[in-house]
Amino acid sequence: MMDNSRVVNTYPLSSYHFYIKDQKTEKNYSVRARLSRLRLNYSIEGMKRSVEGVLLVQEHNFPYVLVFKIGDTLHKLPGGKLRPGEDEIEGLKRKLSSKFARNNPEHQQNWQIRECLGIWWRPNFDNVLYPYCDSHIQPKECTKIYLVQLSAGESLGVPENFKLLAVPLFELHDNGKYGRVLSSIPRQLSTFRFNHISP
Amino acid sequence: MMDNSRVVNTYPLSSYHFYIKDQKTEKNYSVRARLSRLRLNYSIEGMKRSVEGVLLVQEHNFPYVLVFKIGDTLHKLPGGKLRPGEDEIEGLKRKLSSKFARNNPEHQQNWQIRECLGIWWRPNFDNVLYPYCDSHIQPKECTKIYLVQLSAGESLGVPENFKLLAVPLFELHDNGKYGRVLSSIPRQLSTFRFNHISP
Repeated sequence: MMDNSRVVNTYPLSSYHFYIKDQKTEKNYSVRARLSRLRLNYSIEGMKRSVEGVLLVQEHNFPYVLVFKIGDTLHKLPGGKLRPGEDEIEGLKRKLSSKFARNNPEHQQNWQIRECLGIWWRPNFDNVLYPYCDSHIQPKECTKIYLVQLSAGESLGVPENFKLLAVPLFELHDNGKYGRVLSSIPRQLSTFRFNHISP
Repeated sequence: MMDNSRVVNTYPLSSYHFYIKDQKTEKNYSVRARLSRLRLNYSIEGMKRSVEGVLLVQEHNFPYVLVFKIGDTLHKLPGGKLRPGEDEIEGLKRKLSSKFARNNPEHQQNWQIRECLGIWWRPNFDNVLYPYCDSHIQPKECTKIYLVQLSAGESLGVPENFKLLAVPLFELHDNGKYGRVLSSIPRQLSTFRFNHISP
């Protein structure tokens, strides 16, 4: 089976409309609080399941990833924790709408979720993720990273307390500042061909 | 399109038979010699196209990658340079046979080449590879990494002057000692499910 034909359409950053919306509660400011919540929830629900989306735009015919910056140093992809039993794709759509859609809950964005680009495992109650999981380990969290095909000219809301950055692949690649998940995205996208569509 | 169902069968290392065969010429001992050959060939043939294979075995239900060790520090995947105009899949089969098959050219190994796991670009005549290529750049080399599905119990010849190692994913992951191509393989395999088949 060949995957050479995988194509992503990207549209100029300037073709999107960004507006500020109500702020979102962000529970991840403190690593310690997050890990203690992970431990508590694990004892109740078992392994945490998370989903995150890679949303691409282009500038000068080069791909950029939309990244939330929360506080001074935390960078993360849009996404979050699935509900118990929730489908991954449906859950990611719910999370993307919660982050980007208008405050009006009647407005349903039609998210196009594509390939799973990477899977990350958290074997311990700490901050280290691995792209594999030994069968002897009971992982505490599993995060799946999905490619999201954006359409041209969409309106994206940004919670008032977040910043939304467009970061080029060359800036993310192997750059410890962004953490393992974000700094691995260029590698996980390398087999895709980008179809940069001009306005 | 979902890729969650991607499965690789792996068989125990002990199910394979390894034997020593005639030595292969290895032109890559010296980085300087390699780069000067790259520059010369580029002026004649244009961009170098290379293909490499990820061959997996298992030990204790965990995936290991077959890696050549050449000299004291050079680790590389089996593969090599394509001929001008040569098909990638056919070229990788030719290279794998040249490395692993019996000296008897009548013996044709039936290689099963699967997904392309990663693409690496060399924008300059130096040792640095990137998983993307800006459209303004004329790359000097493009290397494609393919997953190869091994069958159980195959006989693999190892050139007398090479060592063949089976390296677990946790040893390769993010480990600078192996270089960017090898140390990225665990990330590029993370969306695959391993079906570890016992003898």
